[in-house]
Amino acid sequence: MSDKRYLILAEEYSHDPHYGKTMWGVMRYRRESVVAILDSKRAGETELGVPIVATVNDALCFNPNTALVGVVTQGGHFPGDWQALLKSAAAKGLDIENGLHYRLREVPGLVETAQKHGVELIDLREPPAGVSTATGANLSVPATIVLTVGTDCAIGKMTATCELDLEARGRGLKSVFVPTGQTGIAIAGWGIAVDAVVSDFIAGAAERLVVEGHERGGELLWVEGQGSILHPVYSGVTLGLIHGSAPHLYVLCHEVGRDEVEGAGGGPHPLPPLAEWVELHERMSLRARPAKVAAIAMNTRFVDEEAARAAIEEAERETGLPADDPVRFGAAKLVDAVLALGQDYASPHPNCPDGASASRLNCRSDRGKAAKGDNL
Amino acid sequence: MSDKRYLILAEEYSHDPHYGKTMWGVMRYRRESVVAILDSKRAGETELGVPIVATVNDALCFNPNTALVGVVTQGGHFPGDWQALLKSAAAKGLDIENGLHYRLREVPGLVETAQKHGVELIDLREPPAGVSTATGANLSVPATIVLTVGTDCAIGKMTATCELDLEARGRGLKSVFVPTGQTGIAIAGWGIAVDAVVSDFIAGAAERLVVEGHERGGELLWVEGQGSILHPVYSGVTLGLIHGSAPHLYVLCHEVGRDEVEGAGGGPHPLPPLAEWVELHERMSLRARPAKVAAIAMNTRFVDEEAARAAIEEAERETGLPADDPVRFGAAKLVDAVLALGQDYASPHPNCPDGASASRLNCRSDRGKAAKGDNL
Repeated sequence: MSDKRYLILAEEYSHDPHYGKTMWGVMRYRRESVVAILDSKRAGETELGVPIVATVNDALCFNPNTALVGVVTQGGHFPGDWQALLKSAAAKGLDIENGLHYRLREVPGLVETAQKHGVELIDLREPPAGVSTATGANLSVPATIVLTVGTDCAIGKMTATCELDLEARGRGLKSVFVPTGQTGIAIAGWGIAVDAVVSDFIAGAAERLVVEGHERGGELLWVEGQGSILHPVYSGVTLGLIHGSAPHLYVLCHEVGRDEVEGAGGGPHPLPPLAEWVELHERMSLRARPAKVAAIAMNTRFVDEEAARAAIEEAERETGLPADDPVRFGAAKLVDAVLALGQDYASPHPNCPDGASASRLNCRSDRGKAAKGDNL
Repeated sequence: MSDKRYLILAEEYSHDPHYGKTMWGVMRYRRESVVAILDSKRAGETELGVPIVATVNDALCFNPNTALVGVVTQGGHFPGDWQALLKSAAAKGLDIENGLHYRLREVPGLVETAQKHGVELIDLREPPAGVSTATGANLSVPATIVLTVGTDCAIGKMTATCELDLEARGRGLKSVFVPTGQTGIAIAGWGIAVDAVVSDFIAGAAERLVVEGHERGGELLWVEGQGSILHPVYSGVTLGLIHGSAPHLYVLCHEVGRDEVEGAGGGPHPLPPLAEWVELHERMSLRARPAKVAAIAMNTRFVDEEAARAAIEEAERETGLPADDPVRFGAAKLVDAVLALGQDYASPHPNCPDGASASRLNCRSDRGKAAKGDNL
């Protein structure tokens, strides 16, 4: 994918899939680029075969070239004692990638250290130049656009999106993962953190991403969702992303057992039933692009297999839609559900002999190009 | 209100309530602070008694101390030829207030001109320091919070909000207008442009505004709405504002005859019926603060009086809610509707002898403090 050799900075949080979610996302979907993890309390252990070290010095024998901030925090600020760690990484010649709202140039002395040692400071959340309001170009992207949405933050939307893309690529489809947050950007090496743009430009940033996803060869775009439309803190990002990415289809993500918003003050903020989430998302779609929920991605990590299967069945009964845990049981069923509806919703293929009513995904003229294993 | 003496810069748009909406808002609700309007094509005319001039020089006899950018544009950029005008204003010793996304410091040479002439450059949209994510403090503000929402941008949400506040203040209520956009800020002299904050912080900015509205003495807060929950470009701002301001009640604003979103690309984007807007807003409320639509504010500016009254009646029939045009026919009916529901939804008054079930607005111990004309 690139010549990145990451030392992931995960001090205090290397064990924590919530606060360490950037580390865990990169470990799962870009494992080949990770050479070491820094978390002083776990030094000497390994994680998925990657050595854990106590200091930047201890990591140098694994030959990293980039230190990646592997943690996220609410509001996006650094834990206080990280400043010395970042300067230490720069002083050892490592580029630094950071996905927090807090920018690397704001760490006192870090810019000087970086210049002295000739390393690059990369803020993954820094919006690219020229992001502005949405233009409507999202509605003429000639690709099938699928957005993951969810009942809360940090329930596995990015993970589900990656799994769906991997499954579709495995079938030989021209599938592209469209990253909208810092972890997705670290994994894919492109994207825009839509939560970091000026709020008038959220939809504009999302629009730009689906346009770029198509330019990168995607005829099936899996857009990484953010937050939830009923989240007390982040719902604005979610709805701007929905309207800006203009999906044809949603995959609704839910974590088994979660019945209220986590980590938001002033609550409790109870979550409505799944069937209501399905209906609300469909009704909150752009009227110029009515989107349907195609399937439910269930995150069953906190329950045993029997309970997981029961919860998936219950979700199917409640919503009438296919449901599955794409991590635990594979993404095939969810991709099947999307492709089945994709026939109805996808944009027509300009060169398709079936004419305007045919879907890009199922256009006969494209099928020959799909790799073996394609079961359209 | 202050010692501002505004020259409103409205070149090309002084006649236009859409692109000149900052000018028109200030003319309507802060008329006493306006000494002249600049629009070269209309020089020599007057608007509501205010002289229109061709150049900054021509305005000096009216003794302005501040030039206010009176126009808005989609995406918030200056029309090209405004740079010379702004420098001319600064060179004549006028402070400059600007509500566009584009910042005054980005106008080439303007900072130097301002420094040389000792004038201040004020970007109304510049977020204050320390805006961050919402904390839940919005849910414990001891005031009745009313948010205007709408079916599109630029249909009179700010105007309706000002009229509702004026009517409530006329009744002696402790009413405060809570500004969330550049025009409201220019009128009230405080506020945050929620569309200009980092998108993760929209709800946090809105929360801060209702907290401040109460600190400014408000027991009845009228929060200026932005955009629409189905707007292809700005819906993220709208939903973040809804969840961050945590209203007890909505006033839904609609313009008679508008049946699709204006100015958004990729459309048409048809508007659903009013009854559906009512239902969607109520269902998209925070589950910890279920809000009801109390009334419909109809903007009837483009139709005659008979058609206006017919449209208002039709809106009432369709929604079952009181409707009126607060500009054309006064805000009394809408305020009555809010106060009637305010009894059920307002936070309990800590010192109210009626106990926890009584509304602040109707608490007997407060009534004596209300001015004459209070008809609670």
